[in-house]
Amino acid sequence: MSAPGTIWGVGLGPGDPDLMSVRADRLVRGARHVAFFRKAGRAGQSRKIVDGMLHPQAHEIPMEYPVTTEIPLEDPRYNACLSEFYEDVAGRLRDLARAGEDVVVLCEGDPFFYGSFMHLYTRLKDDVPVRIVPAITGMSAAWTASGAPITWGDDVLSVLMGTLDEETLTARARDADALVFMKVGRNLPKIARALDAAGKADRAVIVEYASMEGQRMTPLLELGERTLPYFSIVLVHGQGRRP
Amino acid sequence: MSAPGTIWGVGLGPGDPDLMSVRADRLVRGARHVAFFRKAGRAGQSRKIVDGMLHPQAHEIPMEYPVTTEIPLEDPRYNACLSEFYEDVAGRLRDLARAGEDVVVLCEGDPFFYGSFMHLYTRLKDDVPVRIVPAITGMSAAWTASGAPITWGDDVLSVLMGTLDEETLTARARDADALVFMKVGRNLPKIARALDAAGKADRAVIVEYASMEGQRMTPLLELGERTLPYFSIVLVHGQGRRP
Repeated sequence: MSAPGTIWGVGLGPGDPDLMSVRADRLVRGARHVAFFRKAGRAGQSRKIVDGMLHPQAHEIPMEYPVTTEIPLEDPRYNACLSEFYEDVAGRLRDLARAGEDVVVLCEGDPFFYGSFMHLYTRLKDDVPVRIVPAITGMSAAWTASGAPITWGDDVLSVLMGTLDEETLTARARDADALVFMKVGRNLPKIARALDAAGKADRAVIVEYASMEGQRMTPLLELGERTLPYFSIVLVHGQGRRP
Repeated sequence: MSAPGTIWGVGLGPGDPDLMSVRADRLVRGARHVAFFRKAGRAGQSRKIVDGMLHPQAHEIPMEYPVTTEIPLEDPRYNACLSEFYEDVAGRLRDLARAGEDVVVLCEGDPFFYGSFMHLYTRLKDDVPVRIVPAITGMSAAWTASGAPITWGDDVLSVLMGTLDEETLTARARDADALVFMKVGRNLPKIARALDAAGKADRAVIVEYASMEGQRMTPLLELGERTLPYFSIVLVHGQGRRP
Protein backbone atom coordinates (compact mmCIF):
# COMPACT_ATOMS: atom_id res chain seq x y z
CA MET A 1 0.00 0.00 0.00
CA SER A 2 1.38 3.40 -0.99
CA ALA A 3 1.75 6.32 1.41
CA PRO A 4 -1.45 8.36 1.66
CA GLY A 5 -1.73 11.71 -0.08
CA THR A 6 -2.37 14.95 1.76
CA ILE A 7 -5.59 16.91 1.75
CA TRP A 8 -4.75 20.60 1.72
CA GLY A 9 -7.28 23.13 2.97
CA VAL A 10 -5.92 26.11 1.09
CA GLY A 11 -7.15 29.56 2.09
CA LEU A 12 -7.45 31.80 -0.97
CA GLY A 13 -8.00 35.04 0.91
CA PRO A 14 -10.58 37.74 0.23
CA GLY A 15 -10.92 37.40 -3.54
CA ASP A 16 -8.04 39.14 -5.32
CA PRO A 17 -5.68 36.34 -6.50
CA ASP A 18 -2.75 38.71 -5.91
CA LEU A 19 -3.59 38.50 -2.19
CA MET A 20 -3.20 34.71 -2.07
CA SER A 21 -0.14 33.58 -0.14
CA VAL A 22 2.94 32.46 -2.02
CA ARG A 23 2.28 28.96 -0.64
CA ALA A 24 -1.37 28.93 -1.73
CA ASP A 25 -0.42 30.19 -5.18
CA ARG A 26 2.14 27.38 -5.58
CA LEU A 27 -0.23 24.67 -4.31
CA VAL A 28 -3.12 25.79 -6.50
CA ARG A 29 -1.00 25.98 -9.65
CA GLY A 30 0.55 22.58 -9.02
CA ALA A 31 -2.57 20.69 -7.93
CA ARG A 32 -3.70 17.52 -9.72
CA HIS A 33 -7.01 17.30 -7.81
CA VAL A 34 -8.87 20.50 -6.96
CA ALA A 35 -12.04 20.37 -4.86
CA PHE A 36 -14.32 23.30 -4.07
CA PHE A 37 -17.73 24.04 -2.60
CA ARG A 38 -20.42 25.68 -4.68
CA LYS A 39 -24.15 26.10 -4.85
CA ALA A 40 -25.84 23.98 -7.51
CA GLY A 41 -25.78 25.73 -10.85
CA ARG A 42 -23.18 28.32 -9.76
CA ALA A 43 -19.50 28.57 -10.67
CA GLY A 44 -18.46 28.81 -7.01
CA GLN A 45 -16.67 31.85 -5.56
CA SER A 46 -13.50 29.96 -4.60
CA ARG A 47 -13.27 28.41 -8.07
CA LYS A 48 -13.68 31.85 -9.64
CA ILE A 49 -10.76 33.24 -7.63
CA VAL A 50 -8.35 30.72 -9.22
CA ASP A 51 -9.66 31.10 -12.77
CA GLY A 52 -6.77 30.75 -15.19
CA MET A 53 -4.41 29.38 -12.51
CA LEU A 54 -5.21 25.64 -12.57
CA HIS A 55 -3.11 23.11 -14.43
CA PRO A 56 -4.83 22.25 -17.74
CA GLN A 57 -5.06 18.59 -16.68
CA ALA A 58 -6.26 19.29 -13.15
CA HIS A 59 -9.13 17.08 -12.04
CA GLU A 60 -11.88 19.34 -10.68
CA ILE A 61 -14.17 18.13 -7.90
CA PRO A 62 -17.14 20.45 -7.35
CA MET A 63 -18.83 19.81 -4.01
CA GLU A 64 -22.40 21.06 -4.41
CA TYR A 65 -24.34 22.14 -1.34
CA PRO A 66 -27.64 20.28 -1.05
CA VAL A 67 -29.44 23.13 0.72
CA THR A 68 -29.10 26.83 0.89
CA THR A 69 -32.27 28.60 1.90
CA GLU A 70 -34.92 25.92 1.22
CA ILE A 71 -34.87 24.56 4.79
CA PRO A 72 -34.81 27.04 7.70
CA LEU A 73 -31.66 26.98 9.86
CA GLU A 74 -33.72 26.00 12.93
CA ASP A 75 -35.16 22.88 11.28
CA PRO A 76 -33.27 19.74 12.44
CA ARG A 77 -33.39 18.49 8.85
CA TYR A 78 -31.07 21.36 7.90
CA ASN A 79 -28.22 19.99 9.99
CA ALA A 80 -28.99 16.38 9.06
CA CYS A 81 -28.94 17.19 5.38
CA LEU A 82 -25.71 19.17 5.59
CA SER A 83 -24.09 16.50 7.74
CA GLU A 84 -24.87 13.80 5.16
CA PHE A 85 -23.42 16.02 2.44
CA TYR A 86 -20.18 16.62 4.37
CA GLU A 87 -19.85 12.88 5.09
CA ASP A 88 -20.29 12.11 1.43
CA VAL A 89 -17.73 14.58 0.07
CA ALA A 90 -15.29 13.80 2.90
CA GLY A 91 -15.54 10.17 1.79
CA ARG A 92 -14.60 11.06 -1.77
CA LEU A 93 -11.56 13.05 -0.65
CA ARG A 94 -10.56 10.32 1.84
CA ASP A 95 -10.58 7.74 -0.96
CA LEU A 96 -8.34 9.91 -3.11
CA ALA A 97 -5.87 10.49 -0.27
CA ARG A 98 -5.82 6.77 0.56
CA ALA A 99 -5.00 6.09 -3.09
CA GLY A 100 -1.92 8.29 -2.63
CA GLU A 101 -3.29 11.41 -4.28
CA ASP A 102 -2.86 14.94 -2.92
CA VAL A 103 -6.01 17.06 -3.06
CA VAL A 104 -6.21 20.85 -2.85
CA VAL A 105 -9.48 22.09 -1.38
CA LEU A 106 -10.09 25.72 -2.35
CA CYS A 107 -11.33 27.79 0.60
CA GLU A 108 -12.61 31.37 0.46
CA GLY A 109 -11.00 33.51 3.16
CA ASP A 110 -9.15 31.74 5.98
CA PRO A 111 -10.12 28.06 6.40
CA PHE A 112 -10.25 28.08 10.24
CA PHE A 113 -12.20 31.34 10.51
CA TYR A 114 -15.93 30.69 9.94
CA GLY A 115 -15.01 28.47 6.98
CA SER A 116 -16.74 25.47 5.43
CA PHE A 117 -13.59 23.40 5.17
CA MET A 118 -13.63 22.78 8.93
CA HIS A 119 -16.56 20.43 8.42
CA LEU A 120 -14.38 18.27 6.16
CA TYR A 121 -11.36 18.74 8.42
CA THR A 122 -13.05 17.25 11.49
CA ARG A 123 -14.18 14.26 9.42
CA LEU A 124 -10.79 13.60 7.80
CA LYS A 125 -8.02 14.60 10.21
CA ASP A 126 -7.85 11.27 12.06
CA ASP A 127 -7.80 9.20 8.86
CA VAL A 128 -5.46 10.88 6.38
CA PRO A 129 -2.93 13.75 6.48
CA VAL A 130 -4.71 17.11 6.37
CA ARG A 131 -2.88 20.44 6.26
CA ILE A 132 -4.20 23.98 6.41
CA VAL A 133 -2.86 27.10 4.70
CA PRO A 134 -4.12 30.23 6.49
CA ALA A 135 -5.08 33.27 4.45
CA ILE A 136 -5.97 36.92 4.53
CA THR A 137 -9.52 37.21 5.87
CA GLY A 138 -12.32 39.05 4.14
CA MET A 139 -12.46 41.40 7.12
CA SER A 140 -8.78 42.37 6.65
CA ALA A 141 -9.53 43.25 3.05
CA ALA A 142 -12.56 45.24 4.24
CA TRP A 143 -10.71 47.37 6.76
CA THR A 144 -7.90 47.88 4.27
CA ALA A 145 -10.47 49.06 1.73
CA SER A 146 -11.98 51.37 4.34
CA GLY A 147 -8.78 53.42 4.39
CA ALA A 148 -8.48 53.41 8.18
CA PRO A 149 -7.00 51.03 10.77
CA ILE A 150 -9.63 48.90 12.49
CA THR A 151 -7.88 48.84 15.88
CA TRP A 152 -5.47 51.04 17.84
CA GLY A 153 -3.64 50.48 21.12
CA ASP A 154 -5.78 48.34 23.42
CA ASP A 155 -9.02 48.45 21.44
CA VAL A 156 -11.27 45.40 21.90
CA LEU A 157 -12.37 43.99 18.54
CA SER A 158 -15.47 41.79 18.31
CA VAL A 159 -16.54 39.86 15.24
CA LEU A 160 -20.29 39.30 15.01
CA MET A 161 -22.43 37.30 12.61
CA GLY A 162 -25.51 39.16 11.38
CA THR A 163 -27.50 35.98 11.99
CA LEU A 164 -27.30 36.49 15.78
CA ASP A 165 -30.38 37.82 17.58
CA GLU A 166 -30.75 41.58 17.98
CA GLU A 167 -30.27 41.57 21.76
CA THR A 168 -26.91 39.80 21.50
CA LEU A 169 -25.80 42.04 18.63
CA THR A 170 -26.70 45.14 20.66
CA ALA A 171 -24.94 44.01 23.82
CA ARG A 172 -21.75 42.96 22.02
CA ALA A 173 -21.79 46.14 19.91
CA ARG A 174 -21.96 48.19 23.14
CA ASP A 175 -19.08 46.38 24.80
CA ALA A 176 -16.42 46.43 22.07
CA ASP A 177 -14.39 49.34 20.69
CA ALA A 178 -14.12 48.02 17.15
CA LEU A 179 -16.65 45.83 15.36
CA VAL A 180 -16.84 43.59 12.34
CA PHE A 181 -20.21 42.23 11.18
CA MET A 182 -20.23 39.39 8.70
CA LYS A 183 -23.18 37.52 7.10
CA VAL A 184 -24.76 40.92 6.57
CA GLY A 185 -27.13 40.69 3.54
CA ARG A 186 -30.75 40.64 4.68
CA ASN A 187 -29.64 40.96 8.31
CA LEU A 188 -28.63 44.58 7.72
CA PRO A 189 -31.77 46.21 9.21
CA LYS A 190 -31.22 44.21 12.43
CA ILE A 191 -27.52 45.12 12.50
CA ALA A 192 -28.39 48.78 11.94
CA ARG A 193 -30.88 48.73 14.85
CA ALA A 194 -28.29 47.09 17.13
CA LEU A 195 -25.68 49.70 16.17
CA ASP A 196 -28.16 52.48 16.73
CA ALA A 197 -29.04 51.14 20.19
CA ALA A 198 -25.32 50.87 20.97
CA GLY A 199 -24.75 54.47 19.85
CA LYS A 200 -22.38 53.46 17.06
CA ALA A 201 -24.47 53.67 13.89
CA ASP A 202 -22.90 57.00 12.86
CA ARG A 203 -19.43 55.44 12.85
CA ALA A 204 -20.38 52.31 10.87
CA VAL A 205 -19.40 51.76 7.25
CA ILE A 206 -20.36 49.04 4.81
CA VAL A 207 -17.68 47.57 2.57
CA GLU A 208 -18.88 45.58 -0.46
CA TYR A 209 -16.66 43.30 -2.56
CA ALA A 210 -13.48 44.12 -0.63
CA SER A 211 -10.37 43.57 -2.81
CA MET A 212 -12.61 42.58 -5.75
CA GLU A 213 -14.08 44.31 -8.76
CA GLY A 214 -16.90 46.50 -7.54
CA GLN A 215 -15.23 47.35 -4.21
CA ARG A 216 -17.23 50.12 -2.58
CA MET A 217 -17.56 51.75 0.82
CA THR A 218 -20.70 53.47 2.11
CA PRO A 219 -21.48 54.98 5.51
CA LEU A 220 -24.27 52.89 7.06
CA LEU A 221 -26.50 55.92 7.51
CA GLU A 222 -26.22 56.82 3.83
CA LEU A 223 -27.06 53.41 2.35
CA GLY A 224 -30.75 53.96 1.75
CA GLU A 225 -32.79 51.03 0.49
CA ARG A 226 -30.16 49.40 -1.68
CA THR A 227 -29.80 45.60 -1.36
CA LEU A 228 -26.33 44.44 -0.39
CA PRO A 229 -24.39 41.65 -2.10
CA TYR A 230 -23.30 38.59 -0.16
CA PHE A 231 -19.75 39.91 0.10
CA SER A 232 -20.57 42.78 2.43
CA ILE A 233 -18.97 43.53 5.77
CA VAL A 234 -19.99 46.22 8.25
CA LEU A 235 -17.16 47.85 10.19
CA VAL A 236 -16.95 50.17 13.18
CA HIS A 237 -13.39 51.42 13.62
CA GLY A 238 -11.75 51.58 17.05
CA GLN A 239 -10.70 54.91 18.50
CA GLY A 240 -7.88 53.84 20.81
CA ARG A 241 -4.58 55.40 21.86
CA ARG A 242 -2.65 57.00 19.01
CA PRO A 243 0.64 58.77 19.68
CA MET B 1 8.36 68.57 -10.51
CA SER B 2 8.09 64.80 -11.00
CA ALA B 3 5.08 62.76 -9.88
CA PRO B 4 5.36 61.66 -6.26
CA GLY B 5 6.31 58.10 -5.39
CA THR B 6 4.05 55.78 -3.41
CA ILE B 7 4.61 54.68 0.17
CA TRP B 8 3.54 51.07 0.48
CA GLY B 9 2.59 49.68 3.88
CA VAL B 10 3.24 46.04 3.08
CA GLY B 11 1.91 43.43 5.50
CA LEU B 12 4.33 40.50 5.74
CA GLY B 13 2.03 38.20 7.66
CA PRO B 14 2.83 36.08 10.71
CA GLY B 15 6.50 35.31 10.06
CA ASP B 16 6.86 32.54 7.49
CA PRO B 17 7.87 34.22 4.19
CA ASP B 18 5.90 31.54 2.34
CA LEU B 19 2.76 33.06 3.90
CA MET B 20 3.38 36.51 2.43
CA SER B 21 0.92 37.44 -0.29
CA VAL B 22 1.98 37.23 -3.92
CA ARG B 23 1.69 41.04 -4.04
CA ALA B 24 3.82 41.56 -0.93
CA ASP B 25 6.44 39.14 -2.23
CA ARG B 26 6.66 41.02 -5.52
CA LEU B 27 6.80 44.47 -3.87
CA VAL B 28 9.47 43.43 -1.37
CA ARG B 29 11.70 41.81 -3.99
CA GLY B 30 11.40 44.81 -6.32
CA ALA B 31 11.79 47.59 -3.76
CA ARG B 32 14.52 50.23 -4.06
CA HIS B 33 13.81 51.76 -0.64
CA VAL B 34 12.87 49.48 2.24
CA ALA B 35 11.91 50.96 5.62
CA PHE B 36 11.22 48.98 8.79
CA PHE B 37 10.75 49.52 12.52
CA ARG B 38 13.13 47.99 15.01
CA LYS B 39 14.35 48.37 18.56
CA ALA B 40 17.81 49.92 18.84
CA GLY B 41 20.46 47.26 18.56
CA ARG B 42 18.09 44.62 17.18
CA ALA B 43 17.71 43.26 13.65
CA GLY B 44 13.97 43.92 13.62
CA GLN B 45 11.39 41.17 13.21
CA SER B 46 9.94 42.48 9.94
CA ARG B 47 13.45 42.80 8.44
CA LYS B 48 14.24 39.24 9.51
CA ILE B 49 11.17 37.91 7.68
CA VAL B 50 12.46 39.22 4.34
CA ASP B 51 16.06 38.09 4.82
CA GLY B 52 17.50 37.03 1.48
CA MET B 53 14.62 38.57 -0.48
CA LEU B 54 15.76 42.19 -0.89
CA HIS B 55 17.42 43.51 -4.03
CA PRO B 56 21.21 43.69 -3.47
CA GLN B 57 21.14 47.45 -4.12
CA ALA B 58 18.07 48.13 -1.97
CA HIS B 59 18.43 51.17 0.28
CA GLU B 60 17.49 50.10 3.82
CA ILE B 61 15.90 52.58 6.21
CA PRO B 62 15.78 51.26 9.78
CA MET B 63 13.35 53.26 11.95
CA GLU B 64 14.54 52.77 15.52
CA TYR B 65 12.05 53.15 18.36
CA PRO B 66 13.24 55.70 20.91
CA VAL B 67 11.49 54.01 23.85
CA THR B 68 10.42 50.55 24.71
CA THR B 69 10.06 49.94 28.40
CA GLU B 70 12.08 52.81 29.91
CA ILE B 71 9.04 55.12 30.25
CA PRO B 72 5.77 53.67 31.59
CA LEU B 73 2.84 53.68 29.18
CA GLU B 74 0.84 55.98 31.49
CA ASP B 75 3.53 58.69 31.52
CA PRO B 76 2.59 61.52 29.10
CA ARG B 77 6.24 61.63 28.03
CA TYR B 78 5.75 58.16 26.49
CA ASN B 79 3.26 59.41 23.93
CA ALA B 80 5.16 62.65 23.33
CA CYS B 81 8.37 60.78 22.68
CA LEU B 82 6.73 58.29 20.33
CA SER B 83 4.86 61.05 18.54
CA GLU B 84 8.09 62.96 17.85
CA PHE B 85 9.64 59.75 16.54
CA TYR B 86 6.75 59.05 14.16
CA GLU B 87 6.82 62.67 12.91
CA ASP B 88 10.52 62.35 12.23
CA VAL B 89 10.42 59.08 10.29
CA ALA B 90 7.24 60.10 8.46
CA GLY B 91 9.16 63.19 7.35
CA ARG B 92 11.97 61.09 5.92
CA LEU B 93 9.54 58.90 3.96
CA ARG B 94 7.55 61.95 2.78
CA ASP B 95 10.74 63.50 1.40
CA LEU B 96 11.55 60.33 -0.53
CA ALA B 97 8.04 60.09 -1.98
CA ARG B 98 8.10 63.78 -2.96
CA ALA B 99 11.38 63.12 -4.77
CA GLY B 100 9.49 60.55 -6.85
CA GLU B 101 10.75 57.43 -5.03
CA ASP B 102 8.54 54.49 -4.04
CA VAL B 103 9.15 53.19 -0.52
CA VAL B 104 8.16 49.79 0.84
CA VAL B 105 7.53 49.83 4.59
CA LEU B 106 7.79 46.32 6.01
CA CYS B 107 4.97 45.58 8.48
CA GLU B 108 4.68 42.52 10.71
CA GLY B 109 1.22 40.98 10.50
CA ASP B 110 -1.56 43.03 8.90
CA PRO B 111 -0.84 46.80 8.78
CA PHE B 112 -4.33 47.98 9.80
CA PHE B 113 -4.73 45.47 12.65
CA TYR B 114 -2.90 46.74 15.77
CA GLY B 115 0.05 47.69 13.57
CA SER B 116 2.70 50.40 13.89
CA PHE B 117 2.44 51.53 10.31
CA MET B 118 -0.88 53.25 11.02
CA HIS B 119 1.03 55.93 12.92
CA LEU B 120 2.91 56.75 9.72
CA TYR B 121 -0.19 56.32 7.60
CA THR B 122 -2.17 58.99 9.42
CA ARG B 123 0.77 61.40 9.09
CA LEU B 124 1.37 60.76 5.38
CA LYS B 125 -1.92 59.94 3.69
CA ASP B 126 -2.94 63.54 2.95
CA ASP B 127 0.47 64.49 1.53
CA VAL B 128 1.66 61.65 -0.71
CA PRO B 129 0.15 58.44 -2.15
CA VAL B 130 0.03 55.69 0.48
CA ARG B 131 -1.19 52.18 -0.24
CA ILE B 132 -1.73 49.24 2.08
CA VAL B 133 -1.26 45.53 1.38
CA PRO B 134 -3.24 43.46 3.91
CA ALA B 135 -1.75 40.25 5.25
CA ILE B 136 -2.38 37.08 7.19
CA THR B 137 -2.60 38.03 10.87
CA GLY B 138 -0.55 36.42 13.61
CA MET B 139 -3.81 35.19 15.13
CA SER B 140 -4.71 33.32 11.92
CA ALA B 141 -1.35 31.58 12.06
CA ALA B 142 -1.97 30.80 15.74
CA TRP B 143 -5.35 29.15 15.25
CA THR B 144 -4.03 27.30 12.21
CA ALA B 145 -1.16 26.02 14.37
CA SER B 146 -3.64 25.01 17.07
CA GLY B 147 -5.12 22.41 14.74
CA ALA B 148 -8.70 23.50 15.34
CA PRO B 149 -11.02 26.14 13.85
CA ILE B 150 -11.33 29.24 16.04
CA THR B 151 -14.98 29.90 15.18
CA TRP B 152 -18.04 27.91 14.08
CA GLY B 153 -21.49 28.99 12.99
CA ASP B 154 -22.48 32.16 14.84
CA ASP B 155 -19.67 32.21 17.40
CA VAL B 156 -18.74 35.67 18.66
CA LEU B 157 -14.97 36.22 18.48
CA SER B 158 -13.32 38.87 20.63
CA VAL B 159 -9.71 40.00 20.32
CA LEU B 160 -8.23 41.29 23.57
CA MET B 161 -4.90 42.89 24.40
CA GLY B 162 -3.24 41.50 27.52
CA THR B 163 -2.48 45.08 28.55
CA LEU B 164 -6.16 45.71 29.41
CA ASP B 165 -7.21 45.72 33.06
CA GLU B 166 -8.30 42.45 34.62
CA GLU B 167 -11.92 43.49 35.05
CA THR B 168 -12.32 44.28 31.35
CA LEU B 169 -10.53 41.10 30.34
CA THR B 170 -12.81 39.04 32.57
CA ALA B 171 -16.03 40.65 31.33
CA ARG B 172 -15.09 40.35 27.68
CA ALA B 173 -13.86 36.77 28.15
CA ARG B 174 -17.26 35.88 29.67
CA ASP B 175 -19.27 37.40 26.85
CA ALA B 176 -17.55 35.94 23.79
CA ASP B 177 -17.56 32.37 22.47
CA ALA B 178 -14.07 32.47 20.99
CA LEU B 179 -11.14 34.53 22.26
CA VAL B 180 -7.78 35.74 21.06
CA PHE B 181 -5.38 37.40 23.51
CA MET B 182 -2.42 39.29 22.09
CA LYS B 183 0.38 41.22 23.88
CA VAL B 184 0.58 38.26 26.23
CA GLY B 185 4.16 38.09 27.65
CA ARG B 186 4.21 39.29 31.25
CA ASN B 187 0.44 39.86 31.17
CA LEU B 188 -0.12 36.09 31.18
CA PRO B 189 -0.93 35.75 34.91
CA LYS B 190 -3.61 38.45 34.58
CA ILE B 191 -5.03 36.79 31.44
CA ALA B 192 -5.07 33.43 33.22
CA ARG B 193 -6.98 34.91 36.19
CA ALA B 194 -9.51 36.52 33.81
CA LEU B 195 -10.02 33.23 31.98
CA ASP B 196 -10.41 31.38 35.25
CA ALA B 197 -13.03 33.87 36.45
CA ALA B 198 -14.83 33.51 33.11
CA GLY B 199 -14.79 29.71 33.40
CA LYS B 200 -12.71 29.26 30.26
CA ALA B 201 -9.18 28.59 31.52
CA ASP B 202 -9.46 24.85 30.84
CA ARG B 203 -10.16 25.50 27.15
CA ALA B 204 -7.32 28.01 26.63
CA VAL B 205 -4.15 27.21 24.72
CA ILE B 206 -0.97 29.20 24.21
CA VAL B 207 0.61 29.28 20.77
CA GLU B 208 4.22 30.49 20.57
CA TYR B 209 6.00 31.47 17.35
CA ALA B 210 3.05 30.57 15.10
CA SER B 211 4.26 29.70 11.57
CA MET B 212 7.89 30.23 12.65
CA GLU B 213 10.74 28.07 13.83
CA GLY B 214 9.96 27.04 17.39
CA GLN B 215 6.18 26.90 16.86
CA ARG B 216 4.65 25.27 19.91
CA MET B 217 1.25 24.87 21.52
CA THR B 218 0.62 24.37 25.24
CA PRO B 219 -2.64 24.19 27.19
CA LEU B 220 -2.74 27.21 29.52
CA LEU B 221 -3.17 25.05 32.61
CA GLU B 222 -0.04 23.04 31.75
CA LEU B 223 2.33 25.94 31.17
CA GLY B 224 3.92 26.07 34.61
CA GLU B 225 6.39 28.87 35.32
CA ARG B 226 7.96 29.13 31.88
CA THR B 227 8.41 32.65 30.48
CA LEU B 228 6.69 33.24 27.15
CA PRO B 229 8.31 34.88 24.13
CA TYR B 230 6.90 38.06 22.63
CA PHE B 231 5.26 36.08 19.80
CA SER B 232 2.70 34.33 21.95
CA ILE B 233 -1.03 34.29 21.50
CA VAL B 234 -3.64 32.78 23.83
CA LEU B 235 -6.68 31.21 22.16
CA VAL B 236 -10.02 29.91 23.34
CA HIS B 237 -11.80 28.09 20.53
CA GLY B 238 -15.50 28.58 19.87
CA GLN B 239 -17.91 25.69 20.23
CA GLY B 240 -20.69 26.76 17.83
CA ARG B 241 -23.00 24.87 15.52
CA ARG B 242 -21.31 22.10 13.54
CA PRO B 243 -23.34 19.88 11.21
